[in-house]
Amino acid sequence: MSAADDRWMVRALCLASLSLGRTWPNPGVGCVIVKDGRLIGQGRHETCGDAHAEVRALADCRRRGNDAAGAAAYVTLAPCTRQGRQPPCVNALIAARISRVVAAIADPAQDDPTPALRGVGVTYRVGVLAQEAEHIHGGFLHRVRTGLPRLTGKWAMTADGFIAASTGAASWISSSAALSASRRRRRAFDAIVIGAGTARRDDPQLLALRARMHGSVPGPLRVVVSQTAELKPTSRLVASIPHAPLLVIHGEGVTERRRGELRRLGATVKAVGDAHDPRLVARALADLGCNDVLVEGGSTLHGAWLRAGLFQRLEIYIGLKTLGGGMGVAAGEGAASIGFSQGWIAETPPAMLDGTLRLRLKRE
Amino acid sequence: MSAADDRWMVRALCLASLSLGRTWPNPGVGCVIVKDGRLIGQGRHETCGDAHAEVRALADCRRRGNDAAGAAAYVTLAPCTRQGRQPPCVNALIAARISRVVAAIADPAQDDPTPALRGVGVTYRVGVLAQEAEHIHGGFLHRVRTGLPRLTGKWAMTADGFIAASTGAASWISSSAALSASRRRRRAFDAIVIGAGTARRDDPQLLALRARMHGSVPGPLRVVVSQTAELKPTSRLVASIPHAPLLVIHGEGVTERRRGELRRLGATVKAVGDAHDPRLVARALADLGCNDVLVEGGSTLHGAWLRAGLFQRLEIYIGLKTLGGGMGVAAGEGAASIGFSQGWIAETPPAMLDGTLRLRLKRE
Repeated sequence: MSAADDRWMVRALCLASLSLGRTWPNPGVGCVIVKDGRLIGQGRHETCGDAHAEVRALADCRRRGNDAAGAAAYVTLAPCTRQGRQPPCVNALIAARISRVVAAIADPAQDDPTPALRGVGVTYRVGVLAQEAEHIHGGFLHRVRTGLPRLTGKWAMTADGFIAASTGAASWISSSAALSASRRRRRAFDAIVIGAGTARRDDPQLLALRARMHGSVPGPLRVVVSQTAELKPTSRLVASIPHAPLLVIHGEGVTERRRGELRRLGATVKAVGDAHDPRLVARALADLGCNDVLVEGGSTLHGAWLRAGLFQRLEIYIGLKTLGGGMGVAAGEGAASIGFSQGWIAETPPAMLDGTLRLRLKRE
Repeated sequence: MSAADDRWMVRALCLASLSLGRTWPNPGVGCVIVKDGRLIGQGRHETCGDAHAEVRALADCRRRGNDAAGAAAYVTLAPCTRQGRQPPCVNALIAARISRVVAAIADPAQDDPTPALRGVGVTYRVGVLAQEAEHIHGGFLHRVRTGLPRLTGKWAMTADGFIAASTGAASWISSSAALSASRRRRRAFDAIVIGAGTARRDDPQLLALRARMHGSVPGPLRVVVSQTAELKPTSRLVASIPHAPLLVIHGEGVTERRRGELRRLGATVKAVGDAHDPRLVARALADLGCNDVLVEGGSTLHGAWLRAGLFQRLEIYIGLKTLGGGMGVAAGEGAASIGFSQGWIAETPPAMLDGTLRLRLKRE
């Protein structure tokens, strides 16, 4: 039973991974319905407000002419028990006469579905491929547990540790293969954060590669952190608002007039007490419902966020170039000694992308 | 013939690699003598002033009771033709009635041995595993061709690109496995160079791991570059002079009294016009006969040497730690833009040494 459970859960997890960065504040759950060792329906939660994975999988059964009565449902997160934007999935599974429910992990934002399911004779098992599900739904779980999004720091640096020349001159450190990988990767995040200095100097678009190719899917929320709500009206960030939303998080003392100007450009604005405080910015993003947030720098932002110890993961691209000086990854004082440094472990083996090394690290 | 030639040359190259860092200013040549498909003697140049590889291999033949007449000699560098500290090896090979000589590469510091060998009916082939031999004898070849040693830059940095905390507090960034590998690696170099700041702050010994374990083999020359000939009499560098020699390279304006003090501590001293100029320091080391030199930093030295574009290779250890600020790999302005950066390619695949990533790069 266990090997078969693992196999079907892998399929549900694959479905879930397709929804990363699409369903916030919800987790992007995946579900497969299996009867007599055969998949008879599958579904995933695709957008917030839309039907949940279980309901879509049951609808898929019907569309294929399959009866879910007596079938097993595999879900990457325990089925919801409470009325939200959608009715509770536990009810839908019971109504479809599912006889067995297998969940990878429990949902800390919901009640335990065990009484409801077992009360009507449905078998319930939780804990199949839990580690993998903890990874995929890690952003959602982290936000529910801590009130902050799962934060991932990302930078590209030279082999001598610089992100740009001293003059601030912007240019690609990474190979084009690494750039493509890094842009595709943005899709898996709910929001992408940069500082005002990087917005000004690099004038980036911060679009996910997929979002740009398929205009219909909006890219992740793009966030500029600027104490004074700085943002050039002629920037590429503003010009690309039709492709992905733009949010400016600013500190106290910004006038309503300035906020109105930004809104007229198409951006949204959010005030926090002090935009230099990573914790306040992170909490504001969690309050918006962001589960997985990618922080792309520059050095002022990375310095503050690294020192605050807020990153759960790092994605580092190392271009095989040396500058012999320049702008470091993190500006500011840093830890007083290596003894106070933050430790990391490799989440995946280092990968060479056409001459650029990619490291994916998670907290030790 | 060619496959057998390759096979015997691999053995000669292995012998040569054992002599790296031991024979400067000479190349550490390896030689095997083969007769009827059987190895009948082998040797390598072990120390400058000692017998050359060919002479040692022939002596090894005699010791084993083998007659080298009619045998083939495989050498990693063409046999010498001129009288130096030792008589020319071409003569020794002819006197032993060797019938065939196979060399991996020619020796740019010697005459072509072809006329001498063919004149007495000895077959001569050059170019077997030339690329491998160019690598092993690369330091010697580079010095002969350019007048500078082959220079290798080495540093250990955090995943956010820092070599130490802002306070300069010294501590290990690398895992102990990486530290051991890095210390063993020093053995393959003729000299190890650091700046005065690093000598003062880190108080290192700069001993090769092997040199420390086997007191009989002196470690590589340790070099402190200091414009003002700064060196603490109580430093570990001075205390370890019995294990490996110590050289202070200084700039103009240092008094004879100061130079005398250093000599009394057991160090040697060498003046160059300006110790801040990497080219002058490198030339001084080449003039001493150093073929392969490892430059270990710190950031002032690495900044200047990287900007001078003098490194042929880099060895970078990346500890999976972040400091959120600190002392960069290279101090100073650096290239004006990424476009002017120096490009590198991986010489070996990136290796994980117990949580520390090692990169070995060579010039693009």
